[in-house]
Amino acid sequence: MTLTAPSKLTFQQKLENYAELAIKIGVGLKPGQRLLIGADVENAELVRLVAQKAYDAGARLVEAHWEDDFLTLARLKNAPEESLTEAVHVQTFALNDVAEHEDAVLWMRSTDPDLLKDIDPSRVNKAQTAMMKARAPYYGKVMVNALNWCIIAPPSKAWAQRIFPHLSPDEALEQMWDASFKIVRADVENPLEAWAQHNARLRKVREYLTQKQYSALEFKGGGTDLSVGLPEKHVWGGGSHHTTGNNAGLEFTANIPTEEVWTLPHRERVNGVARASKPLSYSGVLITDIEVHFEDGRIVSAKASKGQEVLEQMIATDEGSHRLGEVALVPHSSPISQSGLLFYNTLYDENAASHIAIGRAYRHNLEGGVEMPLEDFVTLGGNDSLVHVDWMIGSSEIDVTGVLPGGSREAVMVKGEWAFKV
Amino acid sequence: MTLTAPSKLTFQQKLENYAELAIKIGVGLKPGQRLLIGADVENAELVRLVAQKAYDAGARLVEAHWEDDFLTLARLKNAPEESLTEAVHVQTFALNDVAEHEDAVLWMRSTDPDLLKDIDPSRVNKAQTAMMKARAPYYGKVMVNALNWCIIAPPSKAWAQRIFPHLSPDEALEQMWDASFKIVRADVENPLEAWAQHNARLRKVREYLTQKQYSALEFKGGGTDLSVGLPEKHVWGGGSHHTTGNNAGLEFTANIPTEEVWTLPHRERVNGVARASKPLSYSGVLITDIEVHFEDGRIVSAKASKGQEVLEQMIATDEGSHRLGEVALVPHSSPISQSGLLFYNTLYDENAASHIAIGRAYRHNLEGGVEMPLEDFVTLGGNDSLVHVDWMIGSSEIDVTGVLPGGSREAVMVKGEWAFKV
Repeated sequence: MTLTAPSKLTFQQKLENYAELAIKIGVGLKPGQRLLIGADVENAELVRLVAQKAYDAGARLVEAHWEDDFLTLARLKNAPEESLTEAVHVQTFALNDVAEHEDAVLWMRSTDPDLLKDIDPSRVNKAQTAMMKARAPYYGKVMVNALNWCIIAPPSKAWAQRIFPHLSPDEALEQMWDASFKIVRADVENPLEAWAQHNARLRKVREYLTQKQYSALEFKGGGTDLSVGLPEKHVWGGGSHHTTGNNAGLEFTANIPTEEVWTLPHRERVNGVARASKPLSYSGVLITDIEVHFEDGRIVSAKASKGQEVLEQMIATDEGSHRLGEVALVPHSSPISQSGLLFYNTLYDENAASHIAIGRAYRHNLEGGVEMPLEDFVTLGGNDSLVHVDWMIGSSEIDVTGVLPGGSREAVMVKGEWAFKV
Repeated sequence: MTLTAPSKLTFQQKLENYAELAIKIGVGLKPGQRLLIGADVENAELVRLVAQKAYDAGARLVEAHWEDDFLTLARLKNAPEESLTEAVHVQTFALNDVAEHEDAVLWMRSTDPDLLKDIDPSRVNKAQTAMMKARAPYYGKVMVNALNWCIIAPPSKAWAQRIFPHLSPDEALEQMWDASFKIVRADVENPLEAWAQHNARLRKVREYLTQKQYSALEFKGGGTDLSVGLPEKHVWGGGSHHTTGNNAGLEFTANIPTEEVWTLPHRERVNGVARASKPLSYSGVLITDIEVHFEDGRIVSAKASKGQEVLEQMIATDEGSHRLGEVALVPHSSPISQSGLLFYNTLYDENAASHIAIGRAYRHNLEGGVEMPLEDFVTLGGNDSLVHVDWMIGSSEIDVTGVLPGGSREAVMVKGEWAFKV
């Protein structure tokens, strides 16, 4: 069923819709809140639109924290090796201050997916690890939904060129905007209504799956043959969620676009091989043809045709980065997948295909997980790490089977599509 | 004497010179230092150039803290009144963190000088006061030269339009760049040498004036008739200075351009009337035709033909904003003055004309002033305040007379030009 037929909206109207979605569906701004917008300098026009929408929605204070690919690259190229363990001061503060005050936060991520391809991977890893460590207070709040946060990924020139390498820079950017507007449902007359319906459908799917309480999911196809154990009392997430903490009860949608439902893998019950169905951009480096073997939840070998060193260093971050923190299902018929485009960006690509993530798990993916001490969460099968990195294993070739508590099996996905109706 | 004849440098070469000057003459970056660049989003290209020059000069880490006129204006227009006393979080941190670590800092100030002209002055004042209070740790370090800092003011579109209202936006910007390159001596083959000579000359002038130890300066002309008492052991500043503190001894030039020499007025010995020779842009509002009366160092009346409310609120900030913190001499033949342009920006306009500043005084303008407690500095005639605001009283009409310790008088400037040779 088509919700609302795509209409002949102008670019500016679609951009307005996008900004409105970011504030109303994404961060779900509460009147009187402070909003931090983290953005690339290139996104200035959209930041301004979003800031105005935020004030219109009653924001108390809108601040932007800007970043710039050139400066990131210049540092990684030029800074003395020993200085790379120093986290960037202002950026670190910006995040942890949001966490401390439980303010609203919107990230616009438009980094060139292959920005750091010529940088020594050990330098990239050093800077990345320092950054993740310094931001621990922020991620701590994110993992328990104590903040209303949202990530969007508006087009940028360098990124558009990666997606459409045969077009001119301007044409590539135009094509990418066009694709993005469709994917985030900003090209329709009433995008808020479209999102309400979309989130309602995701809620039905996650409620169905939570009620099933599969003890494991088995992924087969496209080189993947993986059993992912699920802990007892796991909870599926998807679409919009509600904050906990001091601002409890705010409805927000952490990713725009979002097409996935996801839950908690058991950190000790993952076995088999996972082969990536799409490249992964991590820390500005593209990693292609990832193949990872798990034994009793732990990665025992990992290879890639490109970026293997970055992959290995990412996995070596800590014990938790050897284990899964998320397993997610996305039908192959999702709008992103149907666009036929490869975005080299997790926000888009993870919402085009079923995926797994190594590292830190979301506490709300376990009943009572938000309130319990971290040790208890880990004992019950949850995972913790400095990192959280998704990569895609889904495609039109993948079958997903659910193992019921009694041991019987039923189809969850066949050839990448849902095998049930909600 | 012409130092170096202006050459046929390309725009890009002049921009490179400008960036080089900012790092080598301006902040005088020490290898291994962290540099914070505060800039407008519109300055991205120059920020990138400067960042590369900084790494070339051995910077450990270059961070940018970006601002955007639109966001400033949107806040002042839209935010709830009571929220304006909240200082912008990330901006405040960026400055005070630089102060805490005594890092290098470069400000690029390209704000539209009339940005906030339609905002209720009491709202502007509320936000401005909160900002100044929150940044007190930073200004504390600046006033004792504990940081190597520099302000430059690269052109921006909106600002160029104010200066050249009859040109197209692109032409105005081009004209402004052209004028700026000349004024900052970036249009010559060897700008570093030109600046070395310029700073050497300013040093001679300030040493001459310090040695004179005038007990007062008398300004007459253009509606101004003002006697500014100078404390015993006052010291003239001008050109480059050296840091104190943990990084003691770094040579830096706090303003590019700089044409002034300045010293400490006695906070209780200023009498008469000061009439501004140029408009002042303060907090994004243009204040024109300022006329201020002093009695025993204190402002007893202030008026302006435009922006009077902002002027009054600025003066009302605290006791120290009723008194002078700086008196500065600039010959009318300075390159900025000779450009015939009015920039509506203190960095340019204060270096085109002799000026005074109300508010906080520089501690290094008194012998031993950096080391002594603030109370002693104030007892000896120094001033303290949340604010420091310069405005121009110099012109081709102004005569400046120095009163020698014995009571005799001699000419310091006649019709805006030096009456002595160094």
